[in-house]
Amino acid sequence: MAHPLFHEKTPYFLHGADYNPEQWKRYPDVFEEDLRLMKKAQCNVMSVGIFSWTELEPEEGRYELDWLEEVINRLHENDISVFLATPTGARPAWMSRKYPEVLRVQADRTRNLHGLRHNHCFTSPVYREKTEAVNRKLAERFAAHQGVIGWHISNEYGGDCHCNYCQEAFRSFLKKKYGTLDALNHAWWTTFWSHTYTSWEEVESPAPHGESMVHGMNLDWKRFVTEQTRDFFRHEIQPIRKISPQAPVTTNFMGDYEGLNYWKFVDDVSIVSWDSYPLWHQRENDILTGSWTSMMHDLNRSLSRGPFLLMESTPSVTNWQPHSKLKEPGMHLLSSLQAVAHGSDSVQYFQWRKSRGSSEKLHGAVVGHDGTEHTRVFRDVQDTGEALKALSDIAGSGTKAPAAVIYDWENRWALKDAQGPRNESVFYEETVHDYYHAFWQAGIPVDVIDSVQPLQSYKIVAAPMLYMLRPGVKEALESFVAEGGTLLLTHWSGVVDENDLAFLGRPPLADLTGIVPEEIDGMYESQIRRAAGKGGIREFRYLTERSHVESAEVLSSFTDDFFRDHPAVTRNNFKNGTVYYTAGRVESAGVQDLIHQAAEESGVEIVPLPEGVTRQKRETDTGSYLFYMNFSGEEQVYSHPEKAELLFGSRCPLEKHGIHVWQVRKEEQK
Amino acid sequence: MAHPLFHEKTPYFLHGADYNPEQWKRYPDVFEEDLRLMKKAQCNVMSVGIFSWTELEPEEGRYELDWLEEVINRLHENDISVFLATPTGARPAWMSRKYPEVLRVQADRTRNLHGLRHNHCFTSPVYREKTEAVNRKLAERFAAHQGVIGWHISNEYGGDCHCNYCQEAFRSFLKKKYGTLDALNHAWWTTFWSHTYTSWEEVESPAPHGESMVHGMNLDWKRFVTEQTRDFFRHEIQPIRKISPQAPVTTNFMGDYEGLNYWKFVDDVSIVSWDSYPLWHQRENDILTGSWTSMMHDLNRSLSRGPFLLMESTPSVTNWQPHSKLKEPGMHLLSSLQAVAHGSDSVQYFQWRKSRGSSEKLHGAVVGHDGTEHTRVFRDVQDTGEALKALSDIAGSGTKAPAAVIYDWENRWALKDAQGPRNESVFYEETVHDYYHAFWQAGIPVDVIDSVQPLQSYKIVAAPMLYMLRPGVKEALESFVAEGGTLLLTHWSGVVDENDLAFLGRPPLADLTGIVPEEIDGMYESQIRRAAGKGGIREFRYLTERSHVESAEVLSSFTDDFFRDHPAVTRNNFKNGTVYYTAGRVESAGVQDLIHQAAEESGVEIVPLPEGVTRQKRETDTGSYLFYMNFSGEEQVYSHPEKAELLFGSRCPLEKHGIHVWQVRKEEQK
Amino acid sequence: MAHPLFHEKTPYFLHGADYNPEQWKRYPDVFEEDLRLMKKAQCNVMSVGIFSWTELEPEEGRYELDWLEEVINRLHENDISVFLATPTGARPAWMSRKYPEVLRVQADRTRNLHGLRHNHCFTSPVYREKTEAVNRKLAERFAAHQGVIGWHISNEYGGDCHCNYCQEAFRSFLKKKYGTLDALNHAWWTTFWSHTYTSWEEVESPAPHGESMVHGMNLDWKRFVTEQTRDFFRHEIQPIRKISPQAPVTTNFMGDYEGLNYWKFVDDVSIVSWDSYPLWHQRENDILTGSWTSMMHDLNRSLSRGPFLLMESTPSVTNWQPHSKLKEPGMHLLSSLQAVAHGSDSVQYFQWRKSRGSSEKLHGAVVGHDGTEHTRVFRDVQDTGEALKALSDIAGSGTKAPAAVIYDWENRWALKDAQGPRNESVFYEETVHDYYHAFWQAGIPVDVIDSVQPLQSYKIVAAPMLYMLRPGVKEALESFVAEGGTLLLTHWSGVVDENDLAFLGRPPLADLTGIVPEEIDGMYESQIRRAAGKGGIREFRYLTERSHVESAEVLSSFTDDFFRDHPAVTRNNFKNGTVYYTAGRVESAGVQDLIHQAAEESGVEIVPLPEGVTRQKRETDTGSYLFYMNFSGEEQVYSHPEKAELLFGSRCPLEKHGIHVWQVRKEEQK
Repeated sequence: MAHPLFHEKTPYFLHGADYNPEQWKRYPDVFEEDLRLMKKAQCNVMSVGIFSWTELEPEEGRYELDWLEEVINRLHENDISVFLATPTGARPAWMSRKYPEVLRVQADRTRNLHGLRHNHCFTSPVYREKTEAVNRKLAERFAAHQGVIGWHISNEYGGDCHCNYCQEAFRSFLKKKYGTLDALNHAWWTTFWSHTYTSWEEVESPAPHGESMVHGMNLDWKRFVTEQTRDFFRHEIQPIRKISPQAPVTTNFMGDYEGLNYWKFVDDVSIVSWDSYPLWHQRENDILTGSWTSMMHDLNRSLSRGPFLLMESTPSVTNWQPHSKLKEPGMHLLSSLQAVAHGSDSVQYFQWRKSRGSSEKLHGAVVGHDGTEHTRVFRDVQDTGEALKALSDIAGSGTKAPAAVIYDWENRWALKDAQGPRNESVFYEETVHDYYHAFWQAGIPVDVIDSVQPLQSYKIVAAPMLYMLRPGVKEALESFVAEGGTLLLTHWSGVVDENDLAFLGRPPLADLTGIVPEEIDGMYESQIRRAAGKGGIREFRYLTERSHVESAEVLSSFTDDFFRDHPAVTRNNFKNGTVYYTAGRVESAGVQDLIHQAAEESGVEIVPLPEGVTRQKRETDTGSYLFYMNFSGEEQVYSHPEKAELLFGSRCPLEKHGIHVWQVRKEEQK
Repeated sequence: MAHPLFHEKTPYFLHGADYNPEQWKRYPDVFEEDLRLMKKAQCNVMSVGIFSWTELEPEEGRYELDWLEEVINRLHENDISVFLATPTGARPAWMSRKYPEVLRVQADRTRNLHGLRHNHCFTSPVYREKTEAVNRKLAERFAAHQGVIGWHISNEYGGDCHCNYCQEAFRSFLKKKYGTLDALNHAWWTTFWSHTYTSWEEVESPAPHGESMVHGMNLDWKRFVTEQTRDFFRHEIQPIRKISPQAPVTTNFMGDYEGLNYWKFVDDVSIVSWDSYPLWHQRENDILTGSWTSMMHDLNRSLSRGPFLLMESTPSVTNWQPHSKLKEPGMHLLSSLQAVAHGSDSVQYFQWRKSRGSSEKLHGAVVGHDGTEHTRVFRDVQDTGEALKALSDIAGSGTKAPAAVIYDWENRWALKDAQGPRNESVFYEETVHDYYHAFWQAGIPVDVIDSVQPLQSYKIVAAPMLYMLRPGVKEALESFVAEGGTLLLTHWSGVVDENDLAFLGRPPLADLTGIVPEEIDGMYESQIRRAAGKGGIREFRYLTERSHVESAEVLSSFTDDFFRDHPAVTRNNFKNGTVYYTAGRVESAGVQDLIHQAAEESGVEIVPLPEGVTRQKRETDTGSYLFYMNFSGEEQVYSHPEKAELLFGSRCPLEKHGIHVWQVRKEEQK
Repeated sequence: MAHPLFHEKTPYFLHGADYNPEQWKRYPDVFEEDLRLMKKAQCNVMSVGIFSWTELEPEEGRYELDWLEEVINRLHENDISVFLATPTGARPAWMSRKYPEVLRVQADRTRNLHGLRHNHCFTSPVYREKTEAVNRKLAERFAAHQGVIGWHISNEYGGDCHCNYCQEAFRSFLKKKYGTLDALNHAWWTTFWSHTYTSWEEVESPAPHGESMVHGMNLDWKRFVTEQTRDFFRHEIQPIRKISPQAPVTTNFMGDYEGLNYWKFVDDVSIVSWDSYPLWHQRENDILTGSWTSMMHDLNRSLSRGPFLLMESTPSVTNWQPHSKLKEPGMHLLSSLQAVAHGSDSVQYFQWRKSRGSSEKLHGAVVGHDGTEHTRVFRDVQDTGEALKALSDIAGSGTKAPAAVIYDWENRWALKDAQGPRNESVFYEETVHDYYHAFWQAGIPVDVIDSVQPLQSYKIVAAPMLYMLRPGVKEALESFVAEGGTLLLTHWSGVVDENDLAFLGRPPLADLTGIVPEEIDGMYESQIRRAAGKGGIREFRYLTERSHVESAEVLSSFTDDFFRDHPAVTRNNFKNGTVYYTAGRVESAGVQDLIHQAAEESGVEIVPLPEGVTRQKRETDTGSYLFYMNFSGEEQVYSHPEKAELLFGSRCPLEKHGIHVWQVRKEEQK
């Protein structure tokens, strides 16, 4: 399952950080001191060149790459590999001045001034030309360098541009998609409010002072932004691949960043990498933060279709959140190995050394302004490096998940943009997390996928709030269930097609669920509607549906007001499989009931675990590795796995913020 | 009292909806199915053509009206009348592209892009020309059509434009009003902060980055916007009236929409109509929502000087509020007949059929995406249609109110714009509602009028927070009281003239009230000041005045802090009448004390009613109809009216969300 | 210590108001009535001409000064002196129309329209030319007038402009400061995010749609705005001083207004004056409002290096705060004499007479819209005038403070702009106030200074949260302590240099404190970390540091979580002095412990006072005056000073909102 391109060069865990020695050119001792400290911290990889464009091309067409070669050479000599970045995350000031077209135009049609980062148009011919040139220079010089194990393309792509180039590209995108204006007018339902377009030139991107409420257009704009960003990404890779066709490339994702459908990028990366910044210690305990972070790792592992890389994380605090809380003792190691437990082959940090000035000088780093190794943070990093070495055999191993949760970008866009039952929030992400969390707590490995990924390999699929049914999804769900799968569906599903046009007539999921929703109630924060069934009383909040049953078995019914006796949770047999339906957002225990019932019926192993402890698994040809992780905020005792050997951690109990890794050899597995 | 133009064609209640079959041209079965369902739902009217401009004029000067004729014919053949709309609520995209001047300019002087609705300049010569042309085409074709019972001019007029045409029109408006710059400078008190204008060209509309704090200018801008909108409204009517001088016209108001002084429109409409979207079930019970909605109906009945039309309401939910709560069983009927109880001759919905796409596809409709009559919503609508038939004799009847509450747009503009004792809120609307609510709870019919309407017909007039005394108002109040009327005044009254210039010297209302306010205290949310009198202890909040008494009798005095022994509620004899004065915002029970005392003294009947139940009355030549409506959230028992016959509802008790209608025949009245 | 320029003309307290008779030209009786009322109210000074530009120059180059001469003459004849204002706080409409360049450009690069006040560019050549001309005219006519005791330059300078003139001036400022782009690039650490400037033209002011996160640039922009405003201020003074080199000038400051570093202005004013608008009665009692207001007075006295003027205060309410609460009986006198207690030689109001219209017509004034002296407000003003007469000997006297609190504009700018441990708020102002409050409650006179003022005269200096160490500050603190001073430092100190560049290596204050902070925790609002020491348990909130001790004595240590046993409060001997360090924001009692210990060790007198009562002192050659002021909201008893004579107030107890003034003659002081 491992990605050969990376793994053959580095058959071990990567441990390292973003590194910008060009900030310290005036401080000649810093670089050599850094090398000493990196080795001390057990680091074996650095990401260099991120945001270095002006240092690489200080004036148009004049390139200075020697300093970078020196950096890469010295790192390599010290057994530290390099992810080499293309510098396009920020452009030189001279470029903004000479070619204002490279700067983004906001939705209100204001062109930005030079500043910040990620402030450039992905369509601008000049920006593409300059990008191609600098990337080519880098590839020519470094593609064959032994120290370079991969390319870090740009940095955290995001945002959009509304300039005239982008308007033109948007229209081309739409022409290609719809063919005729007539088809577009139907898909966007423009007869409403007299919005019918009679010429392509009338079509413009959404704007706060123009069009903002045509949902089909908003959706297509988001799709276009993903498409245009991917196109730029490919444009960046091209000069590198031209010189080195096998060059491994990645670009650092941002978890479930709403602005880009990352599934569109996965065919172009050699491996998925992402930047994880959970807010530990924001609540009484870290259980929900822990399972949410796990979900993000599983999403990125699913995107990567195998191991992924943790490209950035903080060795201590961030500085851009409202409160930058210190990590409690143990949390750095737990948080780092959590990524590994979910499939990461690296633990990397932003940043190696705190910059001296500007906006991120107070962001956590392995080396602080004191410049020493005599800090708690440095020791935590060292310990993590040691742990990764001890677990080295696990690198490259994969994960087989019997279950999947569907978390779909396009559905999310449509759901949240549509004006409907609860404009404050429909809690899509939170409801998906409810289901993920129940699997997590039950120790069941899960993939996190979008609605158009193949489902054959799963026994259970949960698809909460699948408001939009993209083309083929209904059929895929039906054949998944027909072949014996167990599907969990909820309220507010099967409402619209891929263009946010409502389905007419009989609801498309009614055959599967055996139940027909008639009305949905947008509830106030304080309102509760209860349901009673075998499992006892469960509370529903935020959204509930009033439905009538066709073929389904009613597992519980509402007991309150005019919802009384209407179904709350149902179970329907569809061919060889089973479909559960939950008519609203039920409390956590209600979701856990369902997952347990579904797992038992499907023969999926449930691991009995204390609350806040999860178990994750990585598998190799020769056996498997079990990670027990404690986010409960208290010491916990759990049943040790049978015929397993404790590879990491001290036997018992599992301390607060503790992690145990057990090895189960294949021959010993029954 | 009935409006002959509408009533002679339709001597019954109208029941229907907004209908846009042009959205379904690609779905050929829909129109005929709609006709079947309309009849089933007891509908007898549809509003067509709203937002249909592009369908009517798909390119400049080319009109397509055949489809509309077909729609009107088929409706007519099925005994369904039509309100025919002018399509100016939204303009075609081709027009925005060819003539950008039709698009609005915001206060920040940004010209909008094409999009949304209500996004056009009322002054633009091009927009006026295009409007005249399309309205004329519609009038030529349909003015004589038997199926068309009235014209629905545009849709929910609102907003303003700051383009150069509007700037010029604003200056003309001011020149006409003030004659000289000198007069304007005095009225706006421009010497303050060196704002004196020395040329008309210096005068511009308010702007966030320009002038925003000259209250006289802000007021005149609001007046200008009303004036210019009315002028555009007249411009829309002209081509219709040219062809059909008696054509009945209306335009749908939005309750007490702050942006337009609807009193300026009433001379130009044949009947007032409005769109009512109360937020039922947002609180523990619906009492305050119920009485606020009643107040809005009474305002519109007062504007209409007789029956009005409920032009829009939702058959189920809206989709633009933070939470779209379903109506509880019974609420749809109660809410529909509430309009009738207050003088509506129709119950109409937005919308007949849910659109398939765009921003209102999830807004409630009689027919949902399932397309059937098998829903709770459809049955509720059917039941309402049946009820309207049963009550048919009431259509056209009027209301005689012995009391009035003054709720004045210009006062509201001035009060809320002025920087003063409480910039967070002075609660003008809420304070007016306090008084309205006390009448409502006492079963006393009330008109809701502005301060320049005639007062002779009333026994009691409440004029809360009459901060601005418009020309003639002082005199009108004095002669109302002089002739025996009872007037209720409160704190923060008689402060400024029509230009927000403070009255100097002795306060203008002191003769009436017999009390002189000296200082007003802007209290914090949590602060309470109590007063003691015969009625016991009452609490005052938000604003209280420290005053001294001249001739008034003190009914209660403050007991707290340095307000101790200063008057809280007073009563003054003025010639043949009485003036009550309340020196702050008193709790609800305090207002009810006053209304009861005033009603008893004035010989106005008080109906004893359980809390949350109101009684409203409509009168004909032959008798009257009494509507008992229960908003309390619980079953209630009330004393049945004597010598009356129960026309609607099951006798006793009055169920939750219940409504009873009794008929009292004239000969049986004492 | 007195300012001779003012004091020799007016060897008594000034009492008066802003006065704009030009607003009342149409009301011929008002002016003479005003003169009568002014004398009745014991007023002896008026500020005239503020915002009078259009009245003075109604068209370009045509000046009308006769009306002003008449005003000044009549006031003078009635023994009322004048502060004569330059009118530049607002410009005539004709000027904005003819020369749009005089209008400000916002950070988003939008040029304002005419309107409001303070809406002009300080760099604009035209604005400077027009300013020079009108100021010269005023000086020519009035500089020698006996009635004019001083010049009130403009009004409440503030805000910034981003026009091209200002961009050019900013670049000149930077060229002068840095010499080379290379130096600027280093100071702003532009290598980060590829921000390196390669041409001066690339440098622009901060913008929301451009650069906003380069902290060094943000800081320099704030410095530039101060510099440019001061330059304009000097430009305003020039024509006056040319004609009358000794003309006393002032400009009214706004407390600790964040936008301007007032320390840069003090060399150019003859005396500091400021506008004080505390929000009395916003809490359960007025203790914190009282001590904060005291701190502002002490700041302005420190800026003035002797007596200052209270240029504006409200005689009753303001109208621009969320709630305009009336002053309780006694509060007007207390609040007015509080200024005197802290060094003011005047009590002046905005405004004499309420304007009739526009945005401040509801702001408190000595004379209201009723136009009479028969109001509580007028009597309060009269009483204050009487009190000032009774205390006349105190005018001109000074204050000797044994302690200082450092409250530094540049530190504040840097602290609040930096993204760091708590982006919601680091509570700089509040933490400084904690320390000030402890001195205030202990009756210890304090100077409030910035970090570059001389420290030699103090025994105790508190420098809370001294995040930025400006050049020379470390050395100044060290020599202050070395010579025996006691220094109180806290968390988050000594982090960056004057350009917000972090100090590298050993923390710069470690020698002084004997303790090294390692990590800082940004805590949630609800979080508490406790420390235990001799004084008992103290609670820390918001920010705490995890540190290790070098040479310091640990006075208390944290007891919670992974901070357990790390130092909370320490004491270090440095040469002949002492340094206290507090590793976080401790509750009020914790700061008071420290101030008491420091005062006792330093031999500074602590006055035992009931909570909410403070004692302030003014000193003359012949003795001193002690002001006891009660902000506790309740009557209080205190130990009377020995050998002192009660000059003002009735002996005992000190009533709610009460003030006592005692005189201690020098020969009687021990």
